[in-house]
Amino acid sequence: MGEELLYLNGEYVPHQEAKISVFDSGIVRGDTITESTRTFAHRPFRLEQHIHRLYKSLKVARYRLPMTPDDMLRLTQDMIERNLPAYQPEQDFWIVHNITRGLADLSNDPTKQTAQPTVIIYTSRLDLTYWARFYTEGCHAVTPFSRQTPSQVLDPKVKNRSRLAYTLCDLETKLVDPHAQCIILDANGNLTENKGGNFFVVADGRVETPTTRDALAGESRRTILELCEKLGISSAERDLQPYDVYTADEAFFTSTPYCIMPATRFNGLPVGDGNVGLITKR
Amino acid sequence: MGEELLYLNGEYVPHQEAKISVFDSGIVRGDTITESTRTFAHRPFRLEQHIHRLYKSLKVARYRLPMTPDDMLRLTQDMIERNLPAYQPEQDFWIVHNITRGLADLSNDPTKQTAQPTVIIYTSRLDLTYWARFYTEGCHAVTPFSRQTPSQVLDPKVKNRSRLAYTLCDLETKLVDPHAQCIILDANGNLTENKGGNFFVVADGRVETPTTRDALAGESRRTILELCEKLGISSAERDLQPYDVYTADEAFFTSTPYCIMPATRFNGLPVGDGNVGLITKR
Amino acid sequence: MGEELLYLNGEYVPHQEAKISVFDSGIVRGDTITESTRTFAHRPFRLEQHIHRLYKSLKVARYRLPMTPDDMLRLTQDMIERNLPAYQPEQDFWIVHNITRGLADLSNDPTKQTAQPTVIIYTSRLDLTYWARFYTEGCHAVTPFSRQTPSQVLDPKVKNRSRLAYTLCDLETKLVDPHAQCIILDANGNLTENKGGNFFVVADGRVETPTTRDALAGESRRTILELCEKLGISSAERDLQPYDVYTADEAFFTSTPYCIMPATRFNGLPVGDGNVGLITKR
Amino acid sequence: MGEELLYLNGEYVPHQEAKISVFDSGIVRGDTITESTRTFAHRPFRLEQHIHRLYKSLKVARYRLPMTPDDMLRLTQDMIERNLPAYQPEQDFWIVHNITRGLADLSNDPTKQTAQPTVIIYTSRLDLTYWARFYTEGCHAVTPFSRQTPSQVLDPKVKNRSRLAYTLCDLETKLVDPHAQCIILDANGNLTENKGGNFFVVADGRVETPTTRDALAGESRRTILELCEKLGISSAERDLQPYDVYTADEAFFTSTPYCIMPATRFNGLPVGDGNVGLITKR
Amino acid sequence: MGEELLYLNGEYVPHQEAKISVFDSGIVRGDTITESTRTFAHRPFRLEQHIHRLYKSLKVARYRLPMTPDDMLRLTQDMIERNLPAYQPEQDFWIVHNITRGLADLSNDPTKQTAQPTVIIYTSRLDLTYWARFYTEGCHAVTPFSRQTPSQVLDPKVKNRSRLAYTLCDLETKLVDPHAQCIILDANGNLTENKGGNFFVVADGRVETPTTRDALAGESRRTILELCEKLGISSAERDLQPYDVYTADEAFFTSTPYCIMPATRFNGLPVGDGNVGLITKR
Amino acid sequence: MGEELLYLNGEYVPHQEAKISVFDSGIVRGDTITESTRTFAHRPFRLEQHIHRLYKSLKVARYRLPMTPDDMLRLTQDMIERNLPAYQPEQDFWIVHNITRGLADLSNDPTKQTAQPTVIIYTSRLDLTYWARFYTEGCHAVTPFSRQTPSQVLDPKVKNRSRLAYTLCDLETKLVDPHAQCIILDANGNLTENKGGNFFVVADGRVETPTTRDALAGESRRTILELCEKLGISSAERDLQPYDVYTADEAFFTSTPYCIMPATRFNGLPVGDGNVGLITKR
Repeated sequence: MGEELLYLNGEYVPHQEAKISVFDSGIVRGDTITESTRTFAHRPFRLEQHIHRLYKSLKVARYRLPMTPDDMLRLTQDMIERNLPAYQPEQDFWIVHNITRGLADLSNDPTKQTAQPTVIIYTSRLDLTYWARFYTEGCHAVTPFSRQTPSQVLDPKVKNRSRLAYTLCDLETKLVDPHAQCIILDANGNLTENKGGNFFVVADGRVETPTTRDALAGESRRTILELCEKLGISSAERDLQPYDVYTADEAFFTSTPYCIMPATRFNGLPVGDGNVGLITKR
Repeated sequence: MGEELLYLNGEYVPHQEAKISVFDSGIVRGDTITESTRTFAHRPFRLEQHIHRLYKSLKVARYRLPMTPDDMLRLTQDMIERNLPAYQPEQDFWIVHNITRGLADLSNDPTKQTAQPTVIIYTSRLDLTYWARFYTEGCHAVTPFSRQTPSQVLDPKVKNRSRLAYTLCDLETKLVDPHAQCIILDANGNLTENKGGNFFVVADGRVETPTTRDALAGESRRTILELCEKLGISSAERDLQPYDVYTADEAFFTSTPYCIMPATRFNGLPVGDGNVGLITKR
Repeated sequence: MGEELLYLNGEYVPHQEAKISVFDSGIVRGDTITESTRTFAHRPFRLEQHIHRLYKSLKVARYRLPMTPDDMLRLTQDMIERNLPAYQPEQDFWIVHNITRGLADLSNDPTKQTAQPTVIIYTSRLDLTYWARFYTEGCHAVTPFSRQTPSQVLDPKVKNRSRLAYTLCDLETKLVDPHAQCIILDANGNLTENKGGNFFVVADGRVETPTTRDALAGESRRTILELCEKLGISSAERDLQPYDVYTADEAFFTSTPYCIMPATRFNGLPVGDGNVGLITKR
Repeated sequence: MGEELLYLNGEYVPHQEAKISVFDSGIVRGDTITESTRTFAHRPFRLEQHIHRLYKSLKVARYRLPMTPDDMLRLTQDMIERNLPAYQPEQDFWIVHNITRGLADLSNDPTKQTAQPTVIIYTSRLDLTYWARFYTEGCHAVTPFSRQTPSQVLDPKVKNRSRLAYTLCDLETKLVDPHAQCIILDANGNLTENKGGNFFVVADGRVETPTTRDALAGESRRTILELCEKLGISSAERDLQPYDVYTADEAFFTSTPYCIMPATRFNGLPVGDGNVGLITKR
Repeated sequence: MGEELLYLNGEYVPHQEAKISVFDSGIVRGDTITESTRTFAHRPFRLEQHIHRLYKSLKVARYRLPMTPDDMLRLTQDMIERNLPAYQPEQDFWIVHNITRGLADLSNDPTKQTAQPTVIIYTSRLDLTYWARFYTEGCHAVTPFSRQTPSQVLDPKVKNRSRLAYTLCDLETKLVDPHAQCIILDANGNLTENKGGNFFVVADGRVETPTTRDALAGESRRTILELCEKLGISSAERDLQPYDVYTADEAFFTSTPYCIMPATRFNGLPVGDGNVGLITKR
Repeated sequence: MGEELLYLNGEYVPHQEAKISVFDSGIVRGDTITESTRTFAHRPFRLEQHIHRLYKSLKVARYRLPMTPDDMLRLTQDMIERNLPAYQPEQDFWIVHNITRGLADLSNDPTKQTAQPTVIIYTSRLDLTYWARFYTEGCHAVTPFSRQTPSQVLDPKVKNRSRLAYTLCDLETKLVDPHAQCIILDANGNLTENKGGNFFVVADGRVETPTTRDALAGESRRTILELCEKLGISSAERDLQPYDVYTADEAFFTSTPYCIMPATRFNGLPVGDGNVGLITKR
């Protein structure tokens, strides 16, 4: 097997050797804009769309990047090509972009991007061992007591890695069940998302998900909504409350790595009959 | 002159060589808990208090750190001692702690801290050249349209580096004036803080600052309040609105590096008579 | 005429003798989950749907009830059968379910349901004398100054009898007009519901009602929306404000006992021309 | 031993026989206004103050009660006198008032109090067995994800038994730890109360508790604040956040039955060093 | 050219001589209800609809006006007729209604309308010179830090001239760019409107605009939505955030005087490619 | 008796002749900044302080006025002097300042103040006949269902005449009682103010009033707080809820014209024993 190489500011390095300065704004200011997609049978999933969203995030976060989306696409495809030998045919992998404003200048105006941005692109073995059992058993969705970052603070649609709030929500969730997955509420108690993943409920044959007001506009989410339209399944984006999950027939998370993950329990109660639902199985 | 060395997980390295893995949770999840203090005449300012607050932040962020506050204090003092020769007598320096949950494990539960934490401690030349003119002219305080991270999302009292929201506020502020300093409002339009610094107004001889409900409980802030008590100046912590700055006699920011920075303009209007105020000068 | 009997924990008793302990959690903790439907010509209206919603409420409120929905349906039908002789042919009646967690244990953990739940089912003469004139004159809808219980406090979709807040809203409304009916606003000033009933406005031929974010998902409400679809009348669920009522062509309340009750005045002003509207009359 | 008798609308009955109609507004509308105090060595704790607060609640809830506070006091003292023989000298007891608007008239205006109010007064053996270990070990305080009833919905200062929201908060808390006690947050994430009990933190020798904006103005809370003043301990009522509990030196609940109950854990983390604090022990 | 005359309480006067008492409630209480439309080739645009909305506003603001909408329409048409000679054929004009509660009585109950209302109707040369360049270059849309008047304070759908809040938002916007146009956010950071004008974004061929929850239901807005339906362009009313403008393909304001004004910059960043968009041009 | 003259942009005119253009921004944009004080025995009450606050309001509203506060004071004193003969010795009078941005330019940038400001100063007979009975009977304070303008929309501390929201609150209040005075709640249900007047409650000998977060910082309010300090009466500024008024011993409004007006009823219930309170009488 070949070794995975990581693209770091124009160079290809083994993962172990991929290091950046502790003064990088990615560390000093949590200043990382990011995207993640995955392969299916070694073919990237909606890579162009993910790169398109990456450039939206970069724009809103006011980065200046000396690469066009096309440059980024080609560079990513090159890197995938280069790394393919590192993966067994049945082994899929992540494709991750992490971009920071580069070296931070501590003693001066923090908004000035004097340095070159740091561009990190890599592939990484997609290990879903941990998640596997959730496909058949479903996972336990739990709402933490902390609330989602509101869009007027930092829009969750800007995919970024200033994620301490997400991690704390996750840690609160683990107080209830060490294997629980969080579904975060907004300041009014509406469901939002799962730290960058999305959430759906199914009731009376209708598929519903929170709006993107305070949630990432996920690519898998979009795929689900498109599939519903194709398959003639009624669907909607609207404000949902915990009541809607407790009383749903089924519920599931979506995220690019695991695609769809059924949730069969919610805050300690079964969702529907407590088994993976029909629409989810489909 | 000697060279400044940086403490990185048990080793002392020159700043240029201080690098960490791009898979560190500090980058991957913005997971850095932090403190900064400075020296006055080479003596650290309230070092114990800053380390005390560091451990409060670490606790709330649910880090497990195999070092006691005393260990951390000794380690920091050692490093200061070691680096002292690198600074001219009249040259003061920052003392910074950055601590992350260590290497992130992407394919599994993000809340599990399987790796050793990453501990970074360093000193760095304190260059206040950029800020110097603000001492005599005062700076321009501007309120961005985005709002402060509320405590139920991520308490600003937990000093951390998931700071993309802060940087975006700063960038909005620069739309008004490239040298403006931000004073961020909460969701109800009350003043909070300046991305980790604090803000005070003076009116009718009374010194007032926002409560810590949505603001860092700054060490310089505390010093000001203690000084007011000593000097018999009336002071209070309460909800303040932009009106209170527009109509104040004087206003100032506090932060450990620059201590007190007068604000002589606010959203384009002069504060008081537009000159640095009497209490600030004191 | 026969006498109405009430089902109380397995026994049938006359209404006058239907008593429960003052230590029942229904009294001690306002812990009653409830449903009400009515008959039309002695046939129950959507009884299965009401029992279905009862079990949703019981689930969200975390009751353990040793009866399935089918048991409950049969039991209710039995009781209706048994009580039918008590009603004149032209006399319709309520069908009410009130279920509590049973005897409360004051000296210990209040969340432990150690006792058997208290199950009360009864029918009761439906006396609409008071409401009769509203069908022809319309009623006066008034917004109290207190606000609706938000879903993150206690979801109004969980039909329950912890209703002191509702009663206080009603009492505030009576300050304006002793015959006014309340339409409660949410914390942002949007219309929600009438203490367990729903509200609709009609403007330009379009029928609109608040979403269920902070309102009961009423069975009569659902019936109206279904009727609109059948009859080709445009309808929508959306945020409505008092402005939309003042400027509507007509407005009405819905609730199972009275079905549709036109509102011809709103906070002292006529709705439309002040007469019962065309769609309402239909 | 004599038997405890309960006052119910002018009659004294054994607890077992104390029953009210299932049509009482206490059940049908959760319409119970309440007070609870206890004895110390058979002497009631601040009985007059509790009755004073009872009448405040009755007034705000717009009850008409044909008894003055003095009548109520005398009646309560009579009942205590009468029940004293039922308690061993070392056995203290609750003194509880539960008052409802009386029989509800379902077919008419729910705000009309046509019936006589239901007045229930009783004493009951105060069994603190369950709580005993918390005095030495401290309890586990946990914040549920649901939020406190805001004062503009139903002011928690009006002590009432429409408590389904409280019970659901408690049940959420038990998901984390079956012996946890809830400390409920307001809509902005500030601490409020424990379903009718209060909460304090101690930090740097200063005792702090949330304001009564969204919390009961507890008699034990008032006692603590008065004691602080007497003992020269600095104290304050202000907005507190979870951060303030995590970083406190000690924390405790107050409520009339158990007086002070130390909290040595908060959301899974130790408070202070995890032992009962010095001020609490005092 | 003839001279424009202004209708003032039954008289026609030249603009210069059109004066009202400084004690008019329009000045003393900002009590002016208003409408503005314009002509296209000397023909009024949706005059009936504007007068219809005027009467809605008057109703909600609880004015008593001794003129029916038909009276008002005839009066307005008369005045237009009378003023037509004052305009060159290629010169279009505003048609404005300003109605106040009349002379205020300072020493008594301010809600009593003892005086006759003040009715002002006029036409005025529509000078779009200032706006002209925005049609080809697009304007700069900027979000002020102040927030929109919420509907529970004063519903923006009631078109009125108590506009100090609007003017302050505009002034804040000018701090960023002296030619910027404001797009005001609601208290949660959603887009609302431009002080009585509306705002649209276009993304992926779909036209979207904020709901009227906190925005004027503009006639030009309605026209756009109707045009979209006619032309088969997908459109929606929903909560939009600044992210949606930054990442839109195009954006535009609508208002009766200028109809559609493209916005090619938003808070300093280009909208789409920074040029006037295709749909806008259409 | 002489005739009262009104100062209007440099001229003195009789009240009847005091007129301004219907195109003045005071009408067109509700753009009037204002102050009102009164005389006691023909001597102005805190005139300097009122003018001081006027200039604060003008500054925050970004007016440019070519008169210093001293100019304004002298001008006002001149006008008072001139008008004194118009008043009987026992007849006191208002002193009012109304200042607008002057003629509005409709066809251009509304934030440009191209015209001279309009300066109106006048005195007016202070007729408290209507209020007189409230001194002995007390008035009826009522909370409207609309909410106070929040400071992030338009700070109520900026005294202005964009008062349609105030008038609508007042009109809602009159639905309950045609002589009721409004006490407006903020978005969280806390008491704020009475459309430019303030409100106090007295309980257990302590005088309390809402903070100025969402209320005018009234001169009479300040006088009360100063009097409390002088007289050794405990006082505080804090968040108050309707509960605090219902359960107060007494309550009163303050405003410059009537000074103190006792409120003996609140939303239909008596305050205290329903009579004017002791502290109010003092």
